[in-house]
Amino acid sequence: MNGADRLCDTLLANDIDVCFANPGTSEMHFVAALDRRPQMRCVLGLFEGVVTAAADGYARMAEKPAATLLHTGPGLANGLANLHNARRARTPMVNIVGDHAAWHLPFDAPLTTDIEALARPMSHVVRRVRSPDDVAPAAAEAIAAARATPGVATLILPADSAWGDAAEAPIPIAAAPRPRLVEESTIAAAADRLAAAGRRGGLLLGGAAARGAALDAAGRIAAECGTRLFGEVFITRGERGGSRPALERIPYPVDLACATLAEIDVLVLVSTPEPVAFFGYPGKPSRLAPPHAEIVPLADAADAIDDTMLRLADRLGASNTAPAAPSRRTEGSMAAGPLTDAAISLIAAAHLPDEAIVVDEGLTSGRGFHALSEGGARHDYLMLTGGAIGIGIPLAVGAAIARPDRKVVALQADGSGMYTVQGLWTAARENLDILFVIYANSAYAILRLEMQNVGVTHFDRNAERMLRLDGPPLDWVAMARGMGVEAARAETTERFADLYTAALRRPGPFLIEAIIP
Amino acid sequence: MNGADRLCDTLLANDIDVCFANPGTSEMHFVAALDRRPQMRCVLGLFEGVVTAAADGYARMAEKPAATLLHTGPGLANGLANLHNARRARTPMVNIVGDHAAWHLPFDAPLTTDIEALARPMSHVVRRVRSPDDVAPAAAEAIAAARATPGVATLILPADSAWGDAAEAPIPIAAAPRPRLVEESTIAAAADRLAAAGRRGGLLLGGAAARGAALDAAGRIAAECGTRLFGEVFITRGERGGSRPALERIPYPVDLACATLAEIDVLVLVSTPEPVAFFGYPGKPSRLAPPHAEIVPLADAADAIDDTMLRLADRLGASNTAPAAPSRRTEGSMAAGPLTDAAISLIAAAHLPDEAIVVDEGLTSGRGFHALSEGGARHDYLMLTGGAIGIGIPLAVGAAIARPDRKVVALQADGSGMYTVQGLWTAARENLDILFVIYANSAYAILRLEMQNVGVTHFDRNAERMLRLDGPPLDWVAMARGMGVEAARAETTERFADLYTAALRRPGPFLIEAIIP
Repeated sequence: MNGADRLCDTLLANDIDVCFANPGTSEMHFVAALDRRPQMRCVLGLFEGVVTAAADGYARMAEKPAATLLHTGPGLANGLANLHNARRARTPMVNIVGDHAAWHLPFDAPLTTDIEALARPMSHVVRRVRSPDDVAPAAAEAIAAARATPGVATLILPADSAWGDAAEAPIPIAAAPRPRLVEESTIAAAADRLAAAGRRGGLLLGGAAARGAALDAAGRIAAECGTRLFGEVFITRGERGGSRPALERIPYPVDLACATLAEIDVLVLVSTPEPVAFFGYPGKPSRLAPPHAEIVPLADAADAIDDTMLRLADRLGASNTAPAAPSRRTEGSMAAGPLTDAAISLIAAAHLPDEAIVVDEGLTSGRGFHALSEGGARHDYLMLTGGAIGIGIPLAVGAAIARPDRKVVALQADGSGMYTVQGLWTAARENLDILFVIYANSAYAILRLEMQNVGVTHFDRNAERMLRLDGPPLDWVAMARGMGVEAARAETTERFADLYTAALRRPGPFLIEAIIP
Repeated sequence: MNGADRLCDTLLANDIDVCFANPGTSEMHFVAALDRRPQMRCVLGLFEGVVTAAADGYARMAEKPAATLLHTGPGLANGLANLHNARRARTPMVNIVGDHAAWHLPFDAPLTTDIEALARPMSHVVRRVRSPDDVAPAAAEAIAAARATPGVATLILPADSAWGDAAEAPIPIAAAPRPRLVEESTIAAAADRLAAAGRRGGLLLGGAAARGAALDAAGRIAAECGTRLFGEVFITRGERGGSRPALERIPYPVDLACATLAEIDVLVLVSTPEPVAFFGYPGKPSRLAPPHAEIVPLADAADAIDDTMLRLADRLGASNTAPAAPSRRTEGSMAAGPLTDAAISLIAAAHLPDEAIVVDEGLTSGRGFHALSEGGARHDYLMLTGGAIGIGIPLAVGAAIARPDRKVVALQADGSGMYTVQGLWTAARENLDILFVIYANSAYAILRLEMQNVGVTHFDRNAERMLRLDGPPLDWVAMARGMGVEAARAETTERFADLYTAALRRPGPFLIEAIIP
């Protein structure tokens, strides 16, 4: 049995049975080993940014890591932007990068790169396999680290460790993650602050605190104490809709974010860092909470989040409090005729199927959806978490593989969609139940706004050519069909509503190109 | 005048007037400054891998650097694979990466990354701008380094250095590169070895030695001394065809490469490192030259290559030698009916227009073209240099922008073409005179061969699903049209010949999807 076989067996023995892959020559023994194990589901991405984002989407929904398979430094490099998003999301992932045989590295062959240097900024843990016998222990360490951090563990697999014979030895089972229990004194202190602050107290719920028992506890605390509940600007995975408590999402623009938090004296952080501005702007603050506010870190992503929130609710006498009535669905209006981003969001929210998984990389065009979907159908809501655009299409792919029983609705801006457009092909190949909605505004609209923020109101040729995507227009229907995904175009509200509702009833991937100004 | 204005002025004053860009929020002041300078040609790529490869192709043909504009760590990350290729090609490039305002970095906002760590493995020089006043000197340093190395100089531009006011000061002009002159004793020693070795002596011509006066001198040396002339496995830019001397290209497979060099006692290296195997394989060597061969490094990429080769020819008494008659065109044959990769290569070579620029990322399917185009029309020949696939489409874009007077023929494998398929849109927007030929074999064919090399002859489901790209098939005609490039499909030899010859007469971008087994 060679090292590659032992790697596969270690993954499978530790409940990792999906591998998102874009292999190369140095990974051929690993591919051969995977081929001997049909119980591993191998999912090909035609670009590595698809692979890493799909592994992220999978883990967010499956609540366990997938493996990736990438080819040397350049293959890792292509996957780094979405690894960055996964790192910020604290997504558990075992990221496997093949490398040259150790004895070939000193010759500096063309593909030789400093893989560790490239991996570290986007990984929580980086571990290079040292020998065929080291493969299984190293893999088990990576799995344990990915689960416990939780986060991205990158395992570098030299080809000779993959092809070399390994001694017979038991396949190691990684220790189950044991989330840290938050000290009672820490919980008591946070409870005291929140009890005293009433409506001027806030809970900022990130990561696993935006769903499940933790979210439920937060809803009861809000009902009991008046505490305001906030959500992150970019949400890893939020459970929303139905009777769930609504979170006030911190807006992206700095001024709006500061205004949202202006009345807060105490902000308790659960599985999220202190909220800061996405970018620094001249004369604007980096911190979003008001200067007078006390920031109280309660738990981070490695802590036992549900346990912490249940104990906090108990401390606050909210264990049996009925949660506040869910917010009413935000009302919107729309007109017949030419389609607008607002109409898309309204229709998408109003007809959202129960228990859908929404992947939102709609950016400027999709900004209405979050509010409009509040109080509607129950759904999970996933976003880009690190600001590296180009996550949406493959994040939807991964989520759909994790939860084939649920419809995935991917709201996708056109500019960012182009970064990993190859993900459409994987959706077709795997026949995934995803409805892609492309907000086709033919522009980097967010950058047009940012240009105005820096005082530019008139755009000349160079700015127009860097911020507009028309000339020629992208034809998403043609591109989708070119990758095997059925597609149609909507230019009016009526047509979009017809396509959207029909597509929801149809299994398998479908794409709607929604043309908007 | 702010730092961004001074950056633009420094680029323009130093003859950098093309900027390949994919900007983001932190670069808005730079975009605004570019907008005030219409003499800078800004070319948008819809993905950063397009941006960096286009800058590479531009510089290879323009023989001067372009600038890039990338957005923070993730934007750089997306461009790294093709920066890796550029680094291996020793392409001069000024790679500009925006970052957060310096005072915002400590807050670890979501897009914050260790840009230096990401940049160093794929850059020759990395320099972070320290203040608005530092912008112009830092840019001049980067330009000087890019030209002198030659190679990739990455300049990190914090947003506050871009938007901050800079003191009035003269715009710095980077010192002109002064290639190092090779010592006479080094040239004498190489000449002695080659004179003694006759047919058992070889010149391996990389980088700038594969064209111009250096190549011409090599041809005369070969005629005078019997020296064999070799070309790199992956050619940065070779001038070929017409009466030019032919180079024996070192084959990619290790066994063939070793056989090619087996009769060599002395191998003189000009602007290239010692040839090594692309990958290490069990039981196969890393070094390609035979163990007994003497390896003589004569000049590297920073040296004066033409001068070195002219002096070497002089030493060998070859200054006035007539070069050997160019090799005859390799004869090929093809049959009517279903198209094959061999027929594509034959037709593409036979009808190649004079002074075409050939960008070859045909990989396994394109392997016949190099031999078939020997002795035919004069052309430049550009390849992927670092083994990071996904360079071809954008490399062609950059080459076409550098030389609008010449037809670019891009021979492109389908699997690698998908990595940076977004480059088709830039070709359409800029109306570039490129004929893309897609070898559509619906497979990572090179990996199927490599699997056989590791002893796997029967592929089960997992291997098939990682190495085949059909199911669904990619429709390149639809994808190209979706990005504004006219396209047509050929499934027979006759149809391909018709489309190819017609497309060569037609200006602007066109794509032929050539369906092969």
